[in-house]
Amino acid sequence: MAFSPLRWQDDPPAVVLLDQTRLPAAEEYLTCADVSGLIDAIKRLAVRGAPLLGVAGAYGVALAAVRGEDVAAAARALAAARPTAVNLSWGVHRVLDAYRAAGDDPGRALAEAVAVEAEDAAAAARLVDAGLALVPRGARILTHCNTGRLVSAGPGTALGIAAAAHRLGLVKTLWVDETRPLLQGARLTAWEAKQAGIPYQVLADAAAGALFAGGEVDLVLVGADRVAADGTVANKVGTYPLAVLARHHGVPFVVAAPASTIDLDTGAGSAIQVEQRSPEEVTSFAGRPVAPGEAAAYNPAFDRTPAELITALVTDEGVVEPVTGQGLRRVAESAARRRSGAGGATISP
Amino acid sequence: MAFSPLRWQDDPPAVVLLDQTRLPAAEEYLTCADVSGLIDAIKRLAVRGAPLLGVAGAYGVALAAVRGEDVAAAARALAAARPTAVNLSWGVHRVLDAYRAAGDDPGRALAEAVAVEAEDAAAAARLVDAGLALVPRGARILTHCNTGRLVSAGPGTALGIAAAAHRLGLVKTLWVDETRPLLQGARLTAWEAKQAGIPYQVLADAAAGALFAGGEVDLVLVGADRVAADGTVANKVGTYPLAVLARHHGVPFVVAAPASTIDLDTGAGSAIQVEQRSPEEVTSFAGRPVAPGEAAAYNPAFDRTPAELITALVTDEGVVEPVTGQGLRRVAESAARRRSGAGGATISP
Repeated sequence: MAFSPLRWQDDPPAVVLLDQTRLPAAEEYLTCADVSGLIDAIKRLAVRGAPLLGVAGAYGVALAAVRGEDVAAAARALAAARPTAVNLSWGVHRVLDAYRAAGDDPGRALAEAVAVEAEDAAAAARLVDAGLALVPRGARILTHCNTGRLVSAGPGTALGIAAAAHRLGLVKTLWVDETRPLLQGARLTAWEAKQAGIPYQVLADAAAGALFAGGEVDLVLVGADRVAADGTVANKVGTYPLAVLARHHGVPFVVAAPASTIDLDTGAGSAIQVEQRSPEEVTSFAGRPVAPGEAAAYNPAFDRTPAELITALVTDEGVVEPVTGQGLRRVAESAARRRSGAGGATISP
Repeated sequence: MAFSPLRWQDDPPAVVLLDQTRLPAAEEYLTCADVSGLIDAIKRLAVRGAPLLGVAGAYGVALAAVRGEDVAAAARALAAARPTAVNLSWGVHRVLDAYRAAGDDPGRALAEAVAVEAEDAAAAARLVDAGLALVPRGARILTHCNTGRLVSAGPGTALGIAAAAHRLGLVKTLWVDETRPLLQGARLTAWEAKQAGIPYQVLADAAAGALFAGGEVDLVLVGADRVAADGTVANKVGTYPLAVLARHHGVPFVVAAPASTIDLDTGAGSAIQVEQRSPEEVTSFAGRPVAPGEAAAYNPAFDRTPAELITALVTDEGVVEPVTGQGLRRVAESAARRRSGAGGATISP
């Protein structure tokens, strides 16, 4: 557990990243001594995961300020490194605004980046605390994709809950879906589970059916990329079949995601746009073709799970159970109060 | 469609195989000029698929007889090449018995192997004919693993039905599950679909959920490795989640398998033993690790789908719908009558 996916270095100033593209083969840290090096790392996914990208963007602006680079240009370039990553742009602008408000003070920029990191870590810790109550003793937990310390300044989301439950002695087995096509489960979640000492086994995603049928799953714990106002959860493709299997077998299906993931402006799940990614992610493997040359592929990045299949949504502002529009609005309001300094509230929808 | 997965060559005598380990990168034929060459090809899966292994075993004994090799020793070695493949041993012994009954006549051995091949092709053709009635016009068919011409002297089973439906203009799309961990879908089914000119797209197995949710699947068509007397179907891992999804979305789930796959001696599905395969199939790819070094993996070769999730079972002795013990016994009896020369009967359970 001694790894940190991202940290600030004072002398010389730099952002130091665990290079996630090299996992699990090697645990290598990249020292990004200037903003262009950090942008390169963001673009090639050496650092990834929505909350962590916010922290990376924040420290990127601080790095430009401390080094005396053109801060406005650096902020623009950082925010554009992955244009669809909302958190990245959010972290960049929060530090840029603080820097400007303080009369272009580099110290203030760095302090704001530290605050962004601390708030992300605190939010993840609250989420994990809230989720622990849903983990039974001796739990055999099935998870999908990667949602742990690699995506957050804190413990992460779904995998963070599983790791905390393991420290309390509650976890018998963590079943790790390999998560095709990009194998975030096999590559990253298995690596995190090993670091944390959680007993785990990797499986082909479609082998989960045999686990459910054999009564080998007590709880499904997954993250979310976006939650619509009707409670539909968009998450890594392969999440929805787990929800259907969990319902068929009467197993709780729990989603863990920060309150910032709730998007009240998207009313219905059907309005969530799903990115179709390159066919090559499916038709080749490690650069080697595994299908005929010109094979077409259906390769959505996400799928949508409707609220009625979700047992509970765990957030940094409490647990929503069952998942209703009213419960989601309470969480969003609580998060807004906390941001405005009024403090959060426990949710009991 | 001009490929043949296995054929006899007269001069010089040999068994010529399409090397399935080289697909889809290359379409290479292996000429097995003696029994040891054929055994090597069977062991390293250059030829695979239950019905085709029966044909390979039959021609193997004929090859030994025609070349004047020790036929009894060749038969023993062939049958042992893949000890769990019942069809292989069956094909071997059928030709060996005919050879001996004819006073060690090589011509009789070869004629019997030709008969085994012709019967397999005819049975597959009957199965495909029976299955066509279940394919709607404009069908978007989802399939799993590989069940076409590569596994049979004839058109195969589930994929054979899809290909025949395509020739009749019934198929809009064939959705091809890549079928982790060994990728028989991406490597072999996509290649067969391309040969046959069927419009197809490959997908990660867990992306099937999004297809169902989007109303993009009209029919699921899969094969079977064994059918228990209670109608439980053991098939390639990943079949059962498709059955649960199909039920959840009201989509027909059809299994196609030869009558010889029905195992009335196995009463309940729970009695079907499921082979656990090597963790390395999941934790590495093409020799490259994709999970931490010592990662454990849950890697069952098959899963079990209960009869109540199966809309219909298509066999070479007709369609069983719904799948009941009585219907399965009628198919098995019809197959036994055909083997004894009394001819088959159409099944209407």
